[in-house]
Amino acid sequence: MSERLNITYILDCANGETVETKAQDIALEQTVELALETVDEDLRQRIVGHIEALTPLTDTQYQARISYPLAAIGTELTQCLNLLFGNISLKRGIRIVDIDWPAALLQAFGGPAHGRDGLRALLNKPQGPLLCSALKPMGLSAEQLAERCFQFGLGGVHIIKDDHGIADQSDAPFNDRLLRCQEAVTRANAVTGQQSLYFPNVTAGYRELPKRLQAAKDAGCKGVLLNAWVTGLDALRFARDEFGLALMAHPAMTGAYFAPDHGISAELLLGDLFRIAGADASIYPNVGGRFGFSIDTCEAINNHLRRTLPGIKPSLPTPGGGMDVERAPEWVRRYGSDTIILIGGSLYAQSDLAAASTALREALEAA
Amino acid sequence: MSERLNITYILDCANGETVETKAQDIALEQTVELALETVDEDLRQRIVGHIEALTPLTDTQYQARISYPLAAIGTELTQCLNLLFGNISLKRGIRIVDIDWPAALLQAFGGPAHGRDGLRALLNKPQGPLLCSALKPMGLSAEQLAERCFQFGLGGVHIIKDDHGIADQSDAPFNDRLLRCQEAVTRANAVTGQQSLYFPNVTAGYRELPKRLQAAKDAGCKGVLLNAWVTGLDALRFARDEFGLALMAHPAMTGAYFAPDHGISAELLLGDLFRIAGADASIYPNVGGRFGFSIDTCEAINNHLRRTLPGIKPSLPTPGGGMDVERAPEWVRRYGSDTIILIGGSLYAQSDLAAASTALREALEAA
Repeated sequence: MSERLNITYILDCANGETVETKAQDIALEQTVELALETVDEDLRQRIVGHIEALTPLTDTQYQARISYPLAAIGTELTQCLNLLFGNISLKRGIRIVDIDWPAALLQAFGGPAHGRDGLRALLNKPQGPLLCSALKPMGLSAEQLAERCFQFGLGGVHIIKDDHGIADQSDAPFNDRLLRCQEAVTRANAVTGQQSLYFPNVTAGYRELPKRLQAAKDAGCKGVLLNAWVTGLDALRFARDEFGLALMAHPAMTGAYFAPDHGISAELLLGDLFRIAGADASIYPNVGGRFGFSIDTCEAINNHLRRTLPGIKPSLPTPGGGMDVERAPEWVRRYGSDTIILIGGSLYAQSDLAAASTALREALEAA
Repeated sequence: MSERLNITYILDCANGETVETKAQDIALEQTVELALETVDEDLRQRIVGHIEALTPLTDTQYQARISYPLAAIGTELTQCLNLLFGNISLKRGIRIVDIDWPAALLQAFGGPAHGRDGLRALLNKPQGPLLCSALKPMGLSAEQLAERCFQFGLGGVHIIKDDHGIADQSDAPFNDRLLRCQEAVTRANAVTGQQSLYFPNVTAGYRELPKRLQAAKDAGCKGVLLNAWVTGLDALRFARDEFGLALMAHPAMTGAYFAPDHGISAELLLGDLFRIAGADASIYPNVGGRFGFSIDTCEAINNHLRRTLPGIKPSLPTPGGGMDVERAPEWVRRYGSDTIILIGGSLYAQSDLAAASTALREALEAA
């Protein structure tokens, strides 16, 4: 662990740039935003990124490691994001593939308040795989969604979340849906004796977000769903610090960063960044579903959510996005039991949601 | 103008998908998140996107137009962003190239409070090209930055903004910098009789952002700089509605959406979306600078910031990012005088900032 922020990039120099020029440009662009010749020696040492290593990978591809001083960041997540990929997002052929976090930044950002063990404690489920499903589709009334919530609760689904696109539309306004769904899961828990939790989608703008978080807390919810890239990533820290709710983060809008030659690797964005910002669980699109992540990417995300980071609790990987009921036990075996299996559509394809959920939960336990 | 949100996509079907399947997937993914066969006829009509047109462009590329009901959005910017590109960001080969905004959404989001004419009024500069420069580099003290602010003020730079990476680092902490720079520009204005404005960079997390906006207002600033994609785009609306300050938006982190085959076109993101969310001025990387935008993209952004949108004031295009003093008048002629020319490094390359700024401002006026 370094005192500096070390970032490893894959640089594509197909346009005739030299890797030395491209790396130097990044080190300047992300700090002083001036040409090297107009920056004095003091600032070059104190502020501009230092090129630590350049390694050729192919004729035109290089791995570059650049370290940055904390003086270029401060202690704010927003400026850290900006230093990571603010202006260089507007260039091409730059992909961040590794970040070595200094202890000071980890401490400043803080990570999950609950983490894996805390979320398990809220669910009264100290071990074994966890099952999550989504209330959908958009267009149903709050009453209809609450009935589905009740059925999932009867089936022992551990976390029942709103679909991430159900926000505050007129068919199922937020406050009405919140109260009905929370009542439904409480009623189901009284039947099952279990502790299923309802996570409402609180994604909203700056004025509304605190109100939704407060309403969720007042209603008795223990956690919420947040589209953290839509709100700005710091919304996770805000929700964590001001409301103490467990946080499940959804990856909406992040996919643009996952191009093969330009962006931020998914394990860093949905793994490190979401976790460090405060996500107790991070949803990602599992391999073989409706999206195109590879098995290697999925396992890398799992690893980044769980790996040792000083002072930062592990988060729970939450693969979803078109997962099939039939193959779900396979994913538990592959990813381990510290995983939340998120299945929506494949349960809805069956007529009895409670029975389908029960069968799936038992199959996961048996895995 | 339609009652529905019409989105035009370029779809790349190189992977053997049919365009019909790909368009239908988008219409479902961005609304009900279910397979078509599990969605009843009522929801297909009321909620799922309707495919309005499919036009082949090449053997594998198509233009698709899909319309969405307001019932799928509500009136919140966050859910609008999610419907635009939330889950499909995680797919490939989908690029949004046009949006036809329904009047109800324009009214809900509101656009700039000041706009072109309001910002000109604050600057007491009813016509002619506007000049902006940036206080930099990161690593200088608040005193040193304030001295540069004074020099730019003497030179008649209309808007003097913080570099977008200067946030709250220890070399020039926000509050200290704010007070010194605002004092410096006030002192310069007393000399010149002009009305240069200092725009501090208020980019910060949820807890700090309102404090920075309030501090800027209390210090007498008329406007601020915001990295609107880092904070979450709704921060613009929040700043507009709660504080009434003029807003200059910076494009940090947006570049990942501008890949040729997947994302959102720059004129929609930095043009329409930034403007509709409340940016009075939108910074973008001009052609020929350190970034790769084409002249067509730059002119499209200008057009989207200025075009007629019912009830939405026009914003001021702010090309920057490595613009050269020598060529600046050329850009005024090309882009018209309702443009803010943002020049930093090319002024810093000269020794006397006030004299360099005066010369540049006069050259722009003469253009």
